[in-house]
Amino acid sequence: MNAALSSLQQQAQQLSESVTRPIPGSRKIHVPGSRSDLQVPMREIVLTRTPTLFGGEENAPVTVYDTSGPYTDPNARIDLSVGLPPLRAGWVAERGDTDVLDGLSSAFGRSRETDARLDAVRFPSRLQPRRARAGANVTQMHYARRGIITPEMEFVAIRENQRIEAIVDAALLRQHPGEAFGASIPARITPEFVRDEIARGRAVLPNNINHPESEPMIIGRNFLTKINANIGNSAVSSGIAEEVEKLVWAIRWGGDTVMDLSTGKHIHETREWILRNSPVAIGTVPIYQALEKVDGRAEELTWDIFRDTLIEQAEQGVDYFTIHAGVLLRYVPLTAGRVTGIVSRGGSIMAKWCLAHHKENFLYTHFEDICEIMKAYDVTFSLGDGLRPGCIADANDAAQFGELETLGELTKIAWKHDVQTMIEGPGHVPMQLIKENMDKQLRECGEAPFYTLGPLTTDIAPGYDHITSAIGAAMIGWYGTAMLCYVTPKEHLGLPNRQDVRDGIMAYRIAAHASDLAKGHPGAQVRDNALSKARFEFRWEDQFHLGLDPEKAKEFHDETLPKDAHKLAHFCSMCGPHFCSMKITQDVRDYAAGQGLDERTALEAGMAEKSAQFRDLGAEVYRQE
Amino acid sequence: MNAALSSLQQQAQQLSESVTRPIPGSRKIHVPGSRSDLQVPMREIVLTRTPTLFGGEENAPVTVYDTSGPYTDPNARIDLSVGLPPLRAGWVAERGDTDVLDGLSSAFGRSRETDARLDAVRFPSRLQPRRARAGANVTQMHYARRGIITPEMEFVAIRENQRIEAIVDAALLRQHPGEAFGASIPARITPEFVRDEIARGRAVLPNNINHPESEPMIIGRNFLTKINANIGNSAVSSGIAEEVEKLVWAIRWGGDTVMDLSTGKHIHETREWILRNSPVAIGTVPIYQALEKVDGRAEELTWDIFRDTLIEQAEQGVDYFTIHAGVLLRYVPLTAGRVTGIVSRGGSIMAKWCLAHHKENFLYTHFEDICEIMKAYDVTFSLGDGLRPGCIADANDAAQFGELETLGELTKIAWKHDVQTMIEGPGHVPMQLIKENMDKQLRECGEAPFYTLGPLTTDIAPGYDHITSAIGAAMIGWYGTAMLCYVTPKEHLGLPNRQDVRDGIMAYRIAAHASDLAKGHPGAQVRDNALSKARFEFRWEDQFHLGLDPEKAKEFHDETLPKDAHKLAHFCSMCGPHFCSMKITQDVRDYAAGQGLDERTALEAGMAEKSAQFRDLGAEVYRQE
Repeated sequence: MNAALSSLQQQAQQLSESVTRPIPGSRKIHVPGSRSDLQVPMREIVLTRTPTLFGGEENAPVTVYDTSGPYTDPNARIDLSVGLPPLRAGWVAERGDTDVLDGLSSAFGRSRETDARLDAVRFPSRLQPRRARAGANVTQMHYARRGIITPEMEFVAIRENQRIEAIVDAALLRQHPGEAFGASIPARITPEFVRDEIARGRAVLPNNINHPESEPMIIGRNFLTKINANIGNSAVSSGIAEEVEKLVWAIRWGGDTVMDLSTGKHIHETREWILRNSPVAIGTVPIYQALEKVDGRAEELTWDIFRDTLIEQAEQGVDYFTIHAGVLLRYVPLTAGRVTGIVSRGGSIMAKWCLAHHKENFLYTHFEDICEIMKAYDVTFSLGDGLRPGCIADANDAAQFGELETLGELTKIAWKHDVQTMIEGPGHVPMQLIKENMDKQLRECGEAPFYTLGPLTTDIAPGYDHITSAIGAAMIGWYGTAMLCYVTPKEHLGLPNRQDVRDGIMAYRIAAHASDLAKGHPGAQVRDNALSKARFEFRWEDQFHLGLDPEKAKEFHDETLPKDAHKLAHFCSMCGPHFCSMKITQDVRDYAAGQGLDERTALEAGMAEKSAQFRDLGAEVYRQE
Repeated sequence: MNAALSSLQQQAQQLSESVTRPIPGSRKIHVPGSRSDLQVPMREIVLTRTPTLFGGEENAPVTVYDTSGPYTDPNARIDLSVGLPPLRAGWVAERGDTDVLDGLSSAFGRSRETDARLDAVRFPSRLQPRRARAGANVTQMHYARRGIITPEMEFVAIRENQRIEAIVDAALLRQHPGEAFGASIPARITPEFVRDEIARGRAVLPNNINHPESEPMIIGRNFLTKINANIGNSAVSSGIAEEVEKLVWAIRWGGDTVMDLSTGKHIHETREWILRNSPVAIGTVPIYQALEKVDGRAEELTWDIFRDTLIEQAEQGVDYFTIHAGVLLRYVPLTAGRVTGIVSRGGSIMAKWCLAHHKENFLYTHFEDICEIMKAYDVTFSLGDGLRPGCIADANDAAQFGELETLGELTKIAWKHDVQTMIEGPGHVPMQLIKENMDKQLRECGEAPFYTLGPLTTDIAPGYDHITSAIGAAMIGWYGTAMLCYVTPKEHLGLPNRQDVRDGIMAYRIAAHASDLAKGHPGAQVRDNALSKARFEFRWEDQFHLGLDPEKAKEFHDETLPKDAHKLAHFCSMCGPHFCSMKITQDVRDYAAGQGLDERTALEAGMAEKSAQFRDLGAEVYRQE
């Protein structure tokens, strides 16, 4: 074991202290499925009893979705140089449609493996890769279309429900009716529903057979809205240990997938460390690495180099690839009149290639060849929007929408091969033009999941683009986008550090949750209801713990009222102890109860009808006083 | 001069260093009106020349709205103990409908004035207050309805246009058509349009005759969306000097109005310091102070105490009052079944009073008496939403909407008295229920300006409620809300410090601007276009300066690329020097130009038609290459 590797292992020690400390007020639980090796991790937030003043009742724990993997499990032993347990390895193997290869299939992968200069940065313990047997198709879509419910599908069904069936307090389930714009969200997610959604292409379950460490997760408009966080070094900054730490940090705060956008040296080795330690799906943009192989000269890219890169990454376990196959030669001149031209790196690479050769994009002409690779490993397409608008002025123009139409054609080709597919979207779009994007995507791409970057709703706030874009993200999520790619405060200015990643993820978890509430996703309001009840009852710790960022909430509270006693006090810093609207409300309740008004109030309060499945609970949803 | 006063004056010195430093890249300008004493302050952002690679042209300065008052004017002499120049004093006096009073009319005001214990905190130099002559009405609405265009109206007309007429670069004026949901936004704001909007109640110009230091500003759905920032000490924290500093800080970042929500001691004296030093309209919630006068016992409040408080504050110069006259006795029990009851402080005070006496809210029964006071000083109503929802579960319920209907009735009464009126709105509302709020407000309140707090679109992110609410604020602003009351990251947790105020204001300037873009406000896209062009051309300093927060943008950039040379470099930190999509786009442009594609591109690029007034500019809007 050499010095550099041991430095990475020291990093692993640091992780367990600073990034993997338990989330306050929570405990890791595992919900069992139909087989003993199917245990779905969730986070349970334990709550305190309501103060006597407000009724004195017990408050049941609230279960929430958990992306953090084993890192927040005090019972897990983490060793980054070993990697996470390959929980899906048995499921993949038992299907009997894959072979364990003797070695890597890609020339580049093999060359890196045998390069002694890389010993110091190479991941030490690597299993041999798997590949579909000749003629086999190992995608979740292929199984789904043959009526097979895989353990992965059952896993996500359990995961999506967040144990809603365990909630006995009807008030927690109270929820406004949603406006889902044509989505078909069921009251409960069943494994069969998951299968059906994947079969019809309306959802993807990105799970490369060579990434058995991943905890299955589904992306589709009829499921919880997901978010992606980007990490990745560039030529200017950051190293392997830092990237792995960013991964763990990103999933701690709620990243459902992570894209590794590294462009520097050791891109291959960095990716291996990330994949072996990632419980979430990992996406990449293979053209970035292909470009490095030709020293940054886009015109020298070839199908063979690109193909080798796809196989290299597929055998490492990348779960989804961004492929800019819609940047057609005829669309490129349409960008010449734009204010900011082509801002997608992948898009500009392919545009340059098309112009240099005056030939059609080789990703387009070889699209079916790419499908063959995707289905041999179950890599999901993320069809890139290489011509997305880079500013408000360029939104919804002919280049952007032309490419989107081509992505629709490509979706149908991918589906012919049973390859899972999602579609990337903009970008910079003012609010009044957002819905047109969503509607056109649904129409052109047959409801394949939309995966958007923001969109940013104005260009004038560099330093705050997590906010300019969270506005657009919440709206497009509501309209039907399945996954939101985060934007950090450093967008347009620099590379995000750890705090920026946290801020970007928080903005996007807010956007995603606001979308779920607006669509009327079953149970989406449970956490809001529980937190609001805690807030009303001055259960400060419960309020912090139910929030998306318990540490930040407590830190802010303590700035004004640092004493521990204040976390038990029945007042808050905004009004002080002698002037409290919550206490006055309690007087109102006492008054109303004294007047026998409870029942009338329950009828008149006009709370919008909750979803049909909870309707029969009636007036009992109102608190006993 | 005693020690405490001198300490406040030292504070004034500190202001000029830390809070009043010039905004980078900008200079203060004054646009003259029809008379020599009408000079409208704006901020001009000076831009550099485009690099030769991208064309080498000059870039004209961009003029933006400026709320910061004389504090960012290097030619202004600031002395907080003297106050700002009373620029409107002559306009008020020349109308000849007011008297200068011999002394304060309110008993409380007089008692504070003669209390020697307050010498140390009292503002030193106070002019005698003015009041309407007997039988006169001095509201801007009254003048407007009689066909009079006041200097205040002309001032805001010039201010709203932001010198759009001076823009010669047609590409900067390029703009997507908006969706204004029935608003009637003209291509140019004229003084006559301002008058007409005020006359019909669709806009307010909050300008107390006793606040002559204020720079006129208009609030209405057909004008630029405004934002409010709250400041104010509470029983737990902060003092006078800190509050004045917060004021200057808040307007530096873009607060169009500031509400002083102080509840501690020296509330009267703090307000005087704030008003004398405020170039923006100041709002208050008079019931807070009235409650202090009865030692926090809501049931002991009386009309006489409240009336004296209104007069006290009106003679200090408060521009708008939040009055919770819609909290009717019959609505109070409707809140008993809520998850978070009544969360508005004013609402809970009035609810408690109603219950204690089992009588109708005295603000409602004395509403016409209040109108008499408002019109004697031109104080604008901000009809408070005392029953706004405090959580997602309580949104759009019978209590909230019942109160809104009553606010509609009260609006008509206020208008009968020619008293300017705006309506406060929620609160916590999931996205799918936001538009219902806006539509109902427009219908019930005859298009009186809506002034909303957020709304927050989820409850689960304490510590990030500037973001949960910026989402809702942007949407409701788009739908027609005229002013957005900011929410800081400390909402629900503690009192905002200076950084929180900046973060809250930035989130809301983003929301307001995103609204203006979406409504298609003329010229709203100019700054986006200018910034995006600067971004594309790697004019880093211009990009920072055109942003809402130049200091933050530069700070973030410097974290990754600290060297000065990098601000001239034609690459950015995201891709590094060898891999730049902007450079590739330039290749695309060269290619397109070489193919003679420019004109075709201009036609095909499908940029949505810009507003009618710019339509005749045609293909020239596309850059020359």
